[in-house]
Amino acid sequence: MTPGRPVPPPLARPVLPADNSVPGSAAGLFAAAYGAVSGHSGLVPLTLARRAPKADDVEIAIEFCGLCHSDVHATRGEWGAQNYPLVPGHEIVGTVSRVGSAVTDFAPGDRVGVGCMVDSCRECESCLDGLEQYCENGMTGTYGAKDARNGDAITQGGYATSVVVDRRYVVRVPASLDPAAVAPLLCAGVTTFSPLRHFDVEEGDVVGVVGLGGLGHMAVKLAKAMGAVVKVFTTSEAKVPAALELGADEVILSRDEDAMAAANRSIDLIIDTVAAPHDLNPFFRTLRVDGALFQLGLPSEAMPPVNPGSLIRRRIAYAGSLIGGIAETQEMLDFCAEHNVVADIELVRADQLNEAYDRMVAGDVKYRFVLDTSTLQAPAEEADA
Amino acid sequence: MTPGRPVPPPLARPVLPADNSVPGSAAGLFAAAYGAVSGHSGLVPLTLARRAPKADDVEIAIEFCGLCHSDVHATRGEWGAQNYPLVPGHEIVGTVSRVGSAVTDFAPGDRVGVGCMVDSCRECESCLDGLEQYCENGMTGTYGAKDARNGDAITQGGYATSVVVDRRYVVRVPASLDPAAVAPLLCAGVTTFSPLRHFDVEEGDVVGVVGLGGLGHMAVKLAKAMGAVVKVFTTSEAKVPAALELGADEVILSRDEDAMAAANRSIDLIIDTVAAPHDLNPFFRTLRVDGALFQLGLPSEAMPPVNPGSLIRRRIAYAGSLIGGIAETQEMLDFCAEHNVVADIELVRADQLNEAYDRMVAGDVKYRFVLDTSTLQAPAEEADA
Repeated sequence: MTPGRPVPPPLARPVLPADNSVPGSAAGLFAAAYGAVSGHSGLVPLTLARRAPKADDVEIAIEFCGLCHSDVHATRGEWGAQNYPLVPGHEIVGTVSRVGSAVTDFAPGDRVGVGCMVDSCRECESCLDGLEQYCENGMTGTYGAKDARNGDAITQGGYATSVVVDRRYVVRVPASLDPAAVAPLLCAGVTTFSPLRHFDVEEGDVVGVVGLGGLGHMAVKLAKAMGAVVKVFTTSEAKVPAALELGADEVILSRDEDAMAAANRSIDLIIDTVAAPHDLNPFFRTLRVDGALFQLGLPSEAMPPVNPGSLIRRRIAYAGSLIGGIAETQEMLDFCAEHNVVADIELVRADQLNEAYDRMVAGDVKYRFVLDTSTLQAPAEEADA
Repeated sequence: MTPGRPVPPPLARPVLPADNSVPGSAAGLFAAAYGAVSGHSGLVPLTLARRAPKADDVEIAIEFCGLCHSDVHATRGEWGAQNYPLVPGHEIVGTVSRVGSAVTDFAPGDRVGVGCMVDSCRECESCLDGLEQYCENGMTGTYGAKDARNGDAITQGGYATSVVVDRRYVVRVPASLDPAAVAPLLCAGVTTFSPLRHFDVEEGDVVGVVGLGGLGHMAVKLAKAMGAVVKVFTTSEAKVPAALELGADEVILSRDEDAMAAANRSIDLIIDTVAAPHDLNPFFRTLRVDGALFQLGLPSEAMPPVNPGSLIRRRIAYAGSLIGGIAETQEMLDFCAEHNVVADIELVRADQLNEAYDRMVAGDVKYRFVLDTSTLQAPAEEADA
């Protein structure tokens, strides 16, 4: 090990920072964390050594981190090879603890958020357009990604007591909102907000929402806040009352052919949040001319074929959408403050994370688990302090 | 038969009009025509009795009619049950011979066109928006459709010496354009023009065209006229020189993986004119962020599944589009006059129609056959004259 680097406590396997040897840099923090050490380990306590803030960095004391379904896939290695140990979490809310010398827009004590990205090339057309999520050179995910500007270290996420992120990828959390319930907005919120905005949803538009999980429940709330009439499609009769309680104007049982036929040509935009393979053709038939269906979930197996006739006969678009840009994430948070929208959450302790994952896989959550990071093992002492 | 109706000549089987018994109506014309009397008959000479012009009708002496691939499917019964006899043809150009009492916008001698529709409900949102092709109550096709405003008679198309059409579904043919080469604009032209316009193609945009048949060659010409850079995808090396001659800036062999990889993220809009099942995922990869692929052809068998990840990672839209509205058809003709765009055609005589169909199925046409209606058997005498 390089002399002068922070020495991790012996208990847990550390993930070393790549850039603490910069001459004159302040010391980084150790963070208590939970992560996977293999695809079969489940989540175990770990210690992360976070880098010291560089000139443009914001160091955040994490208060809450949402549990996203993709965290389960990633830590279990279901989306291909992973670098372990891996600390997941990309729905991060906390307060600024330190800022780098060039940071003027954030100060210690500010409540801030970090979503799915912590960097991107900043130079391509997508980045210049504020569409960092579509960065042509690949955005840097909040966990499990190579961090090119930090010595190719693998990024580690928000199931931890702290994180250090370039100011460009940090957003402000409005003071009026419950910070725990804001956390899921950083992924589930912006992922549904972005296509609603891209389609220009406004008062009186009819929005369909397929699936009523973490993303689906945010889609219902956000579409309602935009003034839309909201129809929820679900396969489960048991979800009808919950959908109505969330604000849905109508619930359609998608396996009921008569109900689907009655919904023919009635919807402007469908937000499809289901990540399992499913036949889209019956949903296309519920769309009006120039309607669109945005699929947000990525099934691991092939979807049934699309019938081009469904698209041709009404000039329908079948589209995809990936989270949202940084400026759009801020816009979403400000919109949520204005309309008093947050996620419905269940707070979990660190020692409940594995159970929470099992419940997520079983669909047993209304609608998002959020980790209370105060329940992580006490943060380690400040490195080199 | 109702007394007073025109008596058809004995030679051919007539298709009777439904509305000539309106008291005080002028007599309709007999038209010489070619059509199918069964799915296996091929095209044979027929005589049609056209209705006399009603107040809003325009009677047209047809000069030219394009041969569309859908004519082949329809006359051969490949798209489901048909009413025979069936005279196909929906790329009609001719001159006005008579107008109804309420028609003020057309006069005898005017050169006009009729495309794929001769009526629609005129009341639904689509019709009121000038999107008659997406009429919620179903547009009335130029042939083979029930004509609700004319006693549910089955419409008969343009392989004939005359046709009678409500003025609302008739467009003006600019004088500067060759009328024979205009005929295919009424279907192939507007079908490709409409998605190019809907996507707002402008100077410098990059447009991909998949397939180089009747629709594909129009897509190349129209996109070039709009100022786009045009890349043609083809499976056939033999088509490269023809594509370049049409104005393509680049030709990409779609089965060449290296060529497809080199086209990665380079295209704004793809117009896909191929009506056989084909894998779209390699084409999605050539699109930029917010790109779209419009499929215009309707394969009779299932398409391979779409990978939602291709759509999600770049917010790509996979869309369909059906011909164009009436006002848009006029806009397209005016655009073609301004930019001197017409179809590349091969004129055929009536007695060559069956051979032309076989050549179309074999892909042996550059790029559209057009029937010269002066080669139909001499029009019958005017009914009741």
